[in-house]
Amino acid sequence: MKLNCDMGESFGQWKMGNDAAVMPWVDMANIACGFHASDPDHMSETVMLAKAHQVDVGAHPGYDDKEGFGRRSIPHSHQAIANLVAYQVGALSAISQYHGVEVSYVKPHGALYNDMMADEGIFTAIVESVSKLNLNRKTPLKLMILARVDNTAYSALASKYQVELLFEAFADRAYDEQGLLVARSLPGSVYHDSTRIRQQVAEFSAGYVTTISGTKLKLRADSICVHGDNDESIAVVKTLHGDLHP
Amino acid sequence: MKLNCDMGESFGQWKMGNDAAVMPWVDMANIACGFHASDPDHMSETVMLAKAHQVDVGAHPGYDDKEGFGRRSIPHSHQAIANLVAYQVGALSAISQYHGVEVSYVKPHGALYNDMMADEGIFTAIVESVSKLNLNRKTPLKLMILARVDNTAYSALASKYQVELLFEAFADRAYDEQGLLVARSLPGSVYHDSTRIRQQVAEFSAGYVTTISGTKLKLRADSICVHGDNDESIAVVKTLHGDLHP
Amino acid sequence: MKLNCDMGESFGQWKMGNDAAVMPWVDMANIACGFHASDPDHMSETVMLAKAHQVDVGAHPGYDDKEGFGRRSIPHSHQAIANLVAYQVGALSAISQYHGVEVSYVKPHGALYNDMMADEGIFTAIVESVSKLNLNRKTPLKLMILARVDNTAYSALASKYQVELLFEAFADRAYDEQGLLVARSLPGSVYHDSTRIRQQVAEFSAGYVTTISGTKLKLRADSICVHGDNDESIAVVKTLHGDLHP
Amino acid sequence: MKLNCDMGESFGQWKMGNDAAVMPWVDMANIACGFHASDPDHMSETVMLAKAHQVDVGAHPGYDDKEGFGRRSIPHSHQAIANLVAYQVGALSAISQYHGVEVSYVKPHGALYNDMMADEGIFTAIVESVSKLNLNRKTPLKLMILARVDNTAYSALASKYQVELLFEAFADRAYDEQGLLVARSLPGSVYHDSTRIRQQVAEFSAGYVTTISGTKLKLRADSICVHGDNDESIAVVKTLHGDLHP
Repeated sequence: MKLNCDMGESFGQWKMGNDAAVMPWVDMANIACGFHASDPDHMSETVMLAKAHQVDVGAHPGYDDKEGFGRRSIPHSHQAIANLVAYQVGALSAISQYHGVEVSYVKPHGALYNDMMADEGIFTAIVESVSKLNLNRKTPLKLMILARVDNTAYSALASKYQVELLFEAFADRAYDEQGLLVARSLPGSVYHDSTRIRQQVAEFSAGYVTTISGTKLKLRADSICVHGDNDESIAVVKTLHGDLHP
Repeated sequence: MKLNCDMGESFGQWKMGNDAAVMPWVDMANIACGFHASDPDHMSETVMLAKAHQVDVGAHPGYDDKEGFGRRSIPHSHQAIANLVAYQVGALSAISQYHGVEVSYVKPHGALYNDMMADEGIFTAIVESVSKLNLNRKTPLKLMILARVDNTAYSALASKYQVELLFEAFADRAYDEQGLLVARSLPGSVYHDSTRIRQQVAEFSAGYVTTISGTKLKLRADSICVHGDNDESIAVVKTLHGDLHP
Repeated sequence: MKLNCDMGESFGQWKMGNDAAVMPWVDMANIACGFHASDPDHMSETVMLAKAHQVDVGAHPGYDDKEGFGRRSIPHSHQAIANLVAYQVGALSAISQYHGVEVSYVKPHGALYNDMMADEGIFTAIVESVSKLNLNRKTPLKLMILARVDNTAYSALASKYQVELLFEAFADRAYDEQGLLVARSLPGSVYHDSTRIRQQVAEFSAGYVTTISGTKLKLRADSICVHGDNDESIAVVKTLHGDLHP
Repeated sequence: MKLNCDMGESFGQWKMGNDAAVMPWVDMANIACGFHASDPDHMSETVMLAKAHQVDVGAHPGYDDKEGFGRRSIPHSHQAIANLVAYQVGALSAISQYHGVEVSYVKPHGALYNDMMADEGIFTAIVESVSKLNLNRKTPLKLMILARVDNTAYSALASKYQVELLFEAFADRAYDEQGLLVARSLPGSVYHDSTRIRQQVAEFSAGYVTTISGTKLKLRADSICVHGDNDESIAVVKTLHGDLHP
């Protein structure tokens, strides 16, 4: 069970997150690619930091919308989705090659991530884009998506394009009876208690999750998404790292 | 002797150049990479067009300045230059891989091109960036620069990084006694007469150029830069294509 | 009955439309404000051109989306809509003041225009933004919206904020039985025959429109939207100008 | 003697400075206008904050360069400088009118500020742009520039255009024998000791400054530039506020 974290989200003079503090405690860095956040310089620095801590580098492409931080869904044709994913993955790949590092996976960001989970056409466009980039690679890129109770449809589409999926779960978010994340606007949707968070990660490692109503649901996860925004969240990451890599 | 042309310079709804009309008559397409012009969709379409006409695909990175079309010199550290070149070359490489095409060379655009020719630190940053991207490639990227009478310094630096240079000359521009382009602001700096242009290309093929004052200068060129902006320039390209590929 | 036309849609080196050719034949210029198109320089030039032809200057604000040319609906809070309209109207107002010209109306662009017509909250945010800018003005800004068969709701809201509305109709678009524009994707939705277009404008002047099925509908319009994209559309504008200003 | 501070420099999700903490202690807020920093929403919030604390609102226009935060000099024609200043001042003026507030002065930002001080053509373009915006205003905009020992040339040009200048000095920067700021790269160029800073402000109030070598130079200042970046600088601002408004 690996910990992944969004990284490289600074832009120009604007700093976001504390990558240096959280990098030592995660396994996978989802690095922004210059569309919703970051720029070539911050991407380069973030790749170096990941390399120094032997953290896997993942591309974190988003909609081209810095003002909205990639959190606004912007209409695109499926071909345009494929193009913008390829563009951003390629950009980070080259920045990584510059530092002798390979990008190993792709995790769409924000509204693009949500749209991918909700729209088969967008999911297919992303899978196809990744598959075409894999033709030239020794180690193929994997695609990280949200773990669902039933991943059949996603897995079927991905295997049609021979793209391996990684399923991620959220350490600090409550799950509902359908195995979906409880909306942030609802009470109890985000866990702040580290005991509760550690328990949920332990459950994910055992292949299930306890929902907000107390039901146990089967949920397969390969990676846990954590956050490096502030001291509190970084302390949690450090604890989870200790639990998972004792 | 090959013909190269700047391509893929449209952006969103704004069209520039007539790529479809000029692509059949050139050998190398310098494709804008989304910083000074283009976007993932236009890059994708331009790569497809180049592929259809078996034209070599080159990355044409520029400063991140659409309003100025990459023609304004914007101060960057050398590391930032290396990063922005890697970013853009990587982006176009992935878009190209999506279509089963390899990027084969890099030609900086506009102010970045001029700055590269004028500033050894910037030239070195670009060469180094290309060399690091080449570590992973079967066929290494070449770097296209302006042919000078004396290319010794550029060649020495490039060979230190094991990057092969391509030298380009301009079919329709007058050269001065130093072998430099006569500034556009001066009378007689741009040739419009197709006979004069054809003669200059024939001279390049023979390894020299006749300056604006009538002197013959030795000038080695691997490629001739041509333009696809309008019907007149496309007619010239077609004629040159006929001369070079009889 | 006045003719209005979208203008100033060039950006940097990218040219769009033929403003110089169409300006002499229209009464109102909807000038892009730098978000979906244009930049301070093109805005300045377009205002000068409008001034030279004594054409009314209108602000044409859009979503901040040059790549999508403001045609993609991007989620905004109502407050953010009010802010982006104020920002763009203010920017064009200052550029106009620089040339001794007053902006006299506001016409939202593209997706913002459609969202305004479809969403009462967005319409209200725009009306309120215009009303606040009017507090300081001798001649208040008007707001141009799409003429509907029944404008009651729009008019009621606008008069609550003491903003005068201008209703526009489309010379070359077919109307359906509800008085809405027939979608461009449907056959017969766009008129190319100048006789048909002239007839429709004559009908608007008389206060009605003949729908695509042949029914006559009452439709009040203050202005007709025309296009300056190409020679054909400019010829139509010239003819309509002659019809309306004999 | 008034305190001025750069404000509204956040952008989208990226926060910069602590405007809420410093606003109560300053007299003038230089608000970024969306080109080098800020966006319509942050401009709106910053104007509201200034209004709440009865702080004068100033426009802080910069080059259109978020990645470089307006600190890179980008070549512009003089007309383009005039246009970009008018655009940004107009945008903030409208946002301010929305909140019932008037912009009262203009202070160029970063590289534009430096270029204005160094290049008469750029200074003139800015003065002329401000003067044209003043034609329509009851209370004319003033222009804030760097206080020099000899301001004759600047004052002569400004009065030619009937633009009133405000001269600013820096509380925490060492001055050299010419009355110029000692470059940040040099030792002793920035004061961190609050006693030294308070003394320098007291000197400005008395019309002079003690240079880094100990000489007393006459220096007329209307306003002191302070910073709200961190707790330390905000504490200094609070102290200076107490000294100036006892």
